[in-house]
Amino acid sequence: MRLHIDPTRTALVLLDYQNYNVHPDGYWAKAVPGSAERAAPAVARTADVLTAARRAGITVVHVQNAWREGHPDVNPHTPWQAEAKAAGRSTEGTWGIEFIDALAPVEGELVVRKRAVSGFAGTELDRLLRIHDLSTLVIAGIITNFAAEGTARDASDRGFRVIVLTDCCESVNDEMHQFSITHVLPFVGEVASAADFTETASAI
Amino acid sequence: MRLHIDPTRTALVLLDYQNYNVHPDGYWAKAVPGSAERAAPAVARTADVLTAARRAGITVVHVQNAWREGHPDVNPHTPWQAEAKAAGRSTEGTWGIEFIDALAPVEGELVVRKRAVSGFAGTELDRLLRIHDLSTLVIAGIITNFAAEGTARDASDRGFRVIVLTDCCESVNDEMHQFSITHVLPFVGEVASAADFTETASAI
Amino acid sequence: MRLHIDPTRTALVLLDYQNYNVHPDGYWAKAVPGSAERAAPAVARTADVLTAARRAGITVVHVQNAWREGHPDVNPHTPWQAEAKAAGRSTEGTWGIEFIDALAPVEGELVVRKRAVSGFAGTELDRLLRIHDLSTLVIAGIITNFAAEGTARDASDRGFRVIVLTDCCESVNDEMHQFSITHVLPFVGEVASAADFTETASAI
Amino acid sequence: MRLHIDPTRTALVLLDYQNYNVHPDGYWAKAVPGSAERAAPAVARTADVLTAARRAGITVVHVQNAWREGHPDVNPHTPWQAEAKAAGRSTEGTWGIEFIDALAPVEGELVVRKRAVSGFAGTELDRLLRIHDLSTLVIAGIITNFAAEGTARDASDRGFRVIVLTDCCESVNDEMHQFSITHVLPFVGEVASAADFTETASAI
Repeated sequence: MRLHIDPTRTALVLLDYQNYNVHPDGYWAKAVPGSAERAAPAVARTADVLTAARRAGITVVHVQNAWREGHPDVNPHTPWQAEAKAAGRSTEGTWGIEFIDALAPVEGELVVRKRAVSGFAGTELDRLLRIHDLSTLVIAGIITNFAAEGTARDASDRGFRVIVLTDCCESVNDEMHQFSITHVLPFVGEVASAADFTETASAI
Repeated sequence: MRLHIDPTRTALVLLDYQNYNVHPDGYWAKAVPGSAERAAPAVARTADVLTAARRAGITVVHVQNAWREGHPDVNPHTPWQAEAKAAGRSTEGTWGIEFIDALAPVEGELVVRKRAVSGFAGTELDRLLRIHDLSTLVIAGIITNFAAEGTARDASDRGFRVIVLTDCCESVNDEMHQFSITHVLPFVGEVASAADFTETASAI
Repeated sequence: MRLHIDPTRTALVLLDYQNYNVHPDGYWAKAVPGSAERAAPAVARTADVLTAARRAGITVVHVQNAWREGHPDVNPHTPWQAEAKAAGRSTEGTWGIEFIDALAPVEGELVVRKRAVSGFAGTELDRLLRIHDLSTLVIAGIITNFAAEGTARDASDRGFRVIVLTDCCESVNDEMHQFSITHVLPFVGEVASAADFTETASAI
Repeated sequence: MRLHIDPTRTALVLLDYQNYNVHPDGYWAKAVPGSAERAAPAVARTADVLTAARRAGITVVHVQNAWREGHPDVNPHTPWQAEAKAAGRSTEGTWGIEFIDALAPVEGELVVRKRAVSGFAGTELDRLLRIHDLSTLVIAGIITNFAAEGTARDASDRGFRVIVLTDCCESVNDEMHQFSITHVLPFVGEVASAADFTETASAI
């Protein structure tokens, strides 16, 4: 399926593809054995998408989750963040928060650091998108239900056009992934595949 | 279960309990027969919660969805909003957007109008909460997965403490409601019941 | 001087041209005799600008200041808002908050209600501009140093292109008006005149 | 004059006290000879204020202006930012953007990076203040009319209580400094002196 996008007005937004999340030596791979393998196909497809976006001259934004040493920037009332603080994980300056090699930014691509779920929460993402006159977001990220869906919801609420590449997202199990891509994302924006995107980008 | 809340720092936030959503003569009751009956128990519990909040002196904020005539304020790229525009529904000045009688605001309560999913999206909710020095949100609303969960996600991302009264929310079916209260909300904040809240409020 | 604007991406944003501010029977005309006469030339020029914008098909947004009955929505720590509350002025539903006849919205134009200085503060202005794909703001409003400059500063900080029509703004005295248009606005955006705009719009 | 502040709810927010701005070897000292000397008294008073805040246990937030290499994060339509890009100044990773020694952060203090005028624009400042339950901002920064006043305006619009320490701010000349502290800041919040703050903090 060819997507109707204007490459000069579109950003590919990649979320949380960092070592702690998806690398076989990362935090979650150790905490939940099998999770890196589970995410690997989505990572591989996202790498294809990233290559296609670069060739087509589409702006790429890499969103990265990390907290300051000591985690003074977690919301202490939000359980998943309180747990991250208790575990001392995903701290600035560590290997864990770096992007995985397959999806690492190249010179000239925008990197945005976040502390919460949505890529817009307490970040300059909104301002950067306006400065670069980007009105359509193509979203890929992990996990589907939080960083990806949370950013898609927020983008829709702010007035953006949203396209989520569902097979470039992954969750902790099939049920959760399916729920998001079936019951939430089609109401918030469009859902498409990595193949849809690469086919579209290669025709630009 | 008694909630640990400071009534002077807490807001009860009710979302989208409007005629078009839950009244037996409203838009959704006609479009999806049985939906008003489905929501009725949550409405009844929310009415008890509202009474308890008023007695305890907890600030109440009523959030209302509505669009201008002609719907120039929908995000045209967001399917559920494009459909609302096509149906011409939920327009300012109509009976449908009024709060249902059982949950209507009384003098002195704050009413916030929204155009999207989250109660914060393009609204003054954040500013009002800061002015009134409110840092904990107790959320009840319909439907669970959109207005309630969307506002809970956004509030958590902004740094608020979030408590969702899950039996004061309802969705289009049990699966969707259960998903949100099991797989999303407990990670974003606390989940509690109408009875938890009324017990807590009556002890203030 | 011809402005380089794309009419399909530009909004004319008019701020606070309401009875309480500039009508001879309004609040400020009585509190500060001579203020309505002082503002009259700017109002007349803004009326020309509005006519030109309508003819050219440029989107018009009217921003209106007003508070709820009892002023629960002022920032009590902000002196000018605390004074507005003490005076009980500019309340929703009163004649004072209506736009003056010469600059009243026509059907299909967007009206945004605000409670603070900037037209973006706690409003849907940012979201409406994105939905309508508007990236350049042409600003006219009263008073120069607050609603106009405050909105211009905020728009620049959010990534918009800002053009202020300085002779479509007025302040409480010449010194204050001159300060803003000389020492602040040229650093934040572009400054132009009503004649620049009407010349530009008539050539569209 | 003793300020009425609750130290547990107050943040001292220091803005743009960086080498490029106020160090004798910095960008502005070279571009505008005499500017470092002009700012020195305000820097010295701010150092006293910072010491007093630390002793009193008041939260300190250091706000820092800097752009990515190549300046993809300036608003190209905002003249002062376009000039910064043309000059290639204030780039991440350079000495110029570091805080001056006298006002350098110590471990545990919050540092926020910004790209525009207001400390809130595209930053996590708002979220951090809510997480730490801080509702009063004591502002010191350079220059008075931009970073300090811009942040004060924005904070007031968002519902914070604002106190500006006027002699801990400085501008490019006396006229500009006086204008802000006389005609703008007293309407937006409270104005006080370094001595007011240190007297207050030492009594905590």
